[in-house]
Amino acid sequence: MDLLNALRDIVGDGGVLTGEDLTTRAADWLGLSTCQAKAVIRPRSTAELSAVMQRCHAVRQPVIGTGGLTGLVHGTDAQGHEIQISFERMRSVISVDPVGRTMLVEAGTPLQVVHEAAAAHGLIYPVDLGSRGSCTIGGNISTNAGGNTVVRYGMTRDNVLGLEAVLADGTVISSLNTLLKNNAAYDLKQLFIGSEGTLGLVTRAVLKLYPQPLSEGTALVALDSFDAVMAFFAHCGRRLGGLLSSFEVMWQSHYELIAVNSGRHNPPLPGGHGYYAIVEATGTDAERDEALFAQVLGEALEQGHASDVVIAASKAQRAAIWGIREDIEGLFGALTPSCTFDVSMPIAAMDDYVLKLTAAAHAEWGADTRVVVFGHLGDGNLHILVAPRPWSAEAPHKVETLVYEPLRALGGSISAEHGIGLEKRAWLNVSRTPEEIALMHTLKAALDPLGLLNPGKVLR
Amino acid sequence: MDLLNALRDIVGDGGVLTGEDLTTRAADWLGLSTCQAKAVIRPRSTAELSAVMQRCHAVRQPVIGTGGLTGLVHGTDAQGHEIQISFERMRSVISVDPVGRTMLVEAGTPLQVVHEAAAAHGLIYPVDLGSRGSCTIGGNISTNAGGNTVVRYGMTRDNVLGLEAVLADGTVISSLNTLLKNNAAYDLKQLFIGSEGTLGLVTRAVLKLYPQPLSEGTALVALDSFDAVMAFFAHCGRRLGGLLSSFEVMWQSHYELIAVNSGRHNPPLPGGHGYYAIVEATGTDAERDEALFAQVLGEALEQGHASDVVIAASKAQRAAIWGIREDIEGLFGALTPSCTFDVSMPIAAMDDYVLKLTAAAHAEWGADTRVVVFGHLGDGNLHILVAPRPWSAEAPHKVETLVYEPLRALGGSISAEHGIGLEKRAWLNVSRTPEEIALMHTLKAALDPLGLLNPGKVLR
Repeated sequence: MDLLNALRDIVGDGGVLTGEDLTTRAADWLGLSTCQAKAVIRPRSTAELSAVMQRCHAVRQPVIGTGGLTGLVHGTDAQGHEIQISFERMRSVISVDPVGRTMLVEAGTPLQVVHEAAAAHGLIYPVDLGSRGSCTIGGNISTNAGGNTVVRYGMTRDNVLGLEAVLADGTVISSLNTLLKNNAAYDLKQLFIGSEGTLGLVTRAVLKLYPQPLSEGTALVALDSFDAVMAFFAHCGRRLGGLLSSFEVMWQSHYELIAVNSGRHNPPLPGGHGYYAIVEATGTDAERDEALFAQVLGEALEQGHASDVVIAASKAQRAAIWGIREDIEGLFGALTPSCTFDVSMPIAAMDDYVLKLTAAAHAEWGADTRVVVFGHLGDGNLHILVAPRPWSAEAPHKVETLVYEPLRALGGSISAEHGIGLEKRAWLNVSRTPEEIALMHTLKAALDPLGLLNPGKVLR
Repeated sequence: MDLLNALRDIVGDGGVLTGEDLTTRAADWLGLSTCQAKAVIRPRSTAELSAVMQRCHAVRQPVIGTGGLTGLVHGTDAQGHEIQISFERMRSVISVDPVGRTMLVEAGTPLQVVHEAAAAHGLIYPVDLGSRGSCTIGGNISTNAGGNTVVRYGMTRDNVLGLEAVLADGTVISSLNTLLKNNAAYDLKQLFIGSEGTLGLVTRAVLKLYPQPLSEGTALVALDSFDAVMAFFAHCGRRLGGLLSSFEVMWQSHYELIAVNSGRHNPPLPGGHGYYAIVEATGTDAERDEALFAQVLGEALEQGHASDVVIAASKAQRAAIWGIREDIEGLFGALTPSCTFDVSMPIAAMDDYVLKLTAAAHAEWGADTRVVVFGHLGDGNLHILVAPRPWSAEAPHKVETLVYEPLRALGGSISAEHGIGLEKRAWLNVSRTPEEIALMHTLKAALDPLGLLNPGKVLR
């Protein structure tokens, strides 16, 4: 194999995995599948990846960039004629600038390592998600990862100041801007954020850091109507303002399954309420902020929005509350096989949407079918798990139809934060017009005319 | 003229301005020049603009989109063979969603009208700049306008959820997303934000709104060393956190010229200090926030960072402080002819940069040459005005060299927020690599292959 030998010359023997190396290599975070690529190439630097891409470009070899494999949309699946690029040998925090509050990292750096490196300087990188131990910054950028603090800090796109990417032909686009403001012509980094490795391979990035909060309040709040949820969210926005850092909601279906009935948690509040919100506020004055947080939650009880409240009194209690929200293993354990979704829509439309979806699923398969709902309500983002019973091979497409079609009329999105990958390509027209999709193809053709980067993902 | 008659059929007689209509029409906000275009077309809707662009495309007619003409980089200059598109008949606030906190507006809507429409619902659109009465949302988007609150709310890019644009061939890209999170494939709106009308013409936009703050504190703070400025900024970040909404600094050169010596203001603090910061914090609890603001400023005095502080006790006092910072008329009145700049760099590098620039200007032209510095220090963004004396036709290029060349080593930007237009094209290579500029040309060629949109601006 000429190409692989040429690539070995670039990245060294340990940089090219083939054969047995791959048959035991997981292709997803649950370990349900193994790597199907013809090889996995592991460059040690941007220069090595550039040389790899020049070689691949010369022989029209398709390549797929990979991160921590925690994606949920088959965005890095490989076939036998494709090569995967792994950034596992590019996982350094190169530098932290504590005055300018920026960090330069390599793409393969796990999110948690970034968090730790920021904390060492009294700073935070605010993007945070359940898979923090495995997911990488390069993967976060390629998918524009969201997570638990979007309501305050925005998505990954909002927290990347600069980046470096390698194009399909090996050209290095080094836009390692460290400045908050830079309007010197087109903002090229936007091309590579959220495009799932189809326009370029992110190699390094400059991340935006923030002062570590000096206070943190976390509460679990039970609510009994969706009007109460909306009123409570507005109340928190008005009274906590810039302190509000998370506003998550678990529908009863989720809270009771995971917190109450799974045996995996000690429920901080009893079941039986319609909705359970996790509210978090972080600020700069422990005493003042703690008092305000308690006051705002007290007002919510007085005004009748909230039915019950528990405020975490320790790190352990905080972890216990988030542990329920983030127990994806428990969810899959209870409800496999199932179909998972990540949609967004106007908050005001959510309750009706969920009620109709549940009714439609029950009408289709019967009342044993579970519809479990939770997510980043403050961002208009719901995660939905539908487990049709009895399961059948036709079930997923039917579920997708039930979940996605109503989004057209609502102006909703088929992907709030997970991306498109292979899984949602067919539904892209729910959230994008034909003109938008045509323009996406124009971009793809301009940046990757041979179609070598993550072929077939995002666009068909 | 066949084309103009065809366009009249689309936009009506009042929609096509030519001849005398133009000779009296200003081409810049100071009224120093008049419109040189062959015609100004004023569509009333996206559909009309689409039809206009189809016509122009068919005959390869170049067009230049314009906003409030408040730009500072000759980004909308027209020559006699070019047509300008004005959005002055598309200036409606179409709708406000107070629950989802979004506003749908037409491109020609002045920023101040957007502010007022948000205020009517107890909300704010946070982007704010001195030219708010004249500049338009379409212009703000096309230039990714910054302004006085970037340190808290980000730039225009961060506050546009969706937009609609017309491409060179008349295709309408309608991405009027209202969702905070939408990862359904490429984020096309990014193409049109900050690209100065070279990739498409923005017609409508969905803006992100925020709850109106319930408290507002403004202070003018005198500081006597740049180390003190940096320490004070860090202190404000740490202690005010998410409340800090502005951090502006006027160098002594600016404050004394405008506040003390111009006769146009009543200086809230005496001259003689090295730096004058405007700090603003907005929050959700008037009493608590006022106390915190006073406490944080008191600490800065105690710790020796701040030399003198005045806290605005009324709206009028607040307006007086900002009036100094925003008195561009006074600045130009005192120092015309001069060259103005809008650069960004790491905050830690600023003082040395300004000292060296001033020394170099004095060495070049003598000590009558004024270098006046002020800007959005919290964002790493300085506005610099250099007035060489004696003035000469060669002076501007020499000044540009003195201002821009040192930015290479600092990783600075030749344009923090004003854009490139015609004025900064030649210097783009200071802030962008050859590969970046080549990729920009690739994008331009992909979206506007005939080169009809704002030809020659941004890229050569």
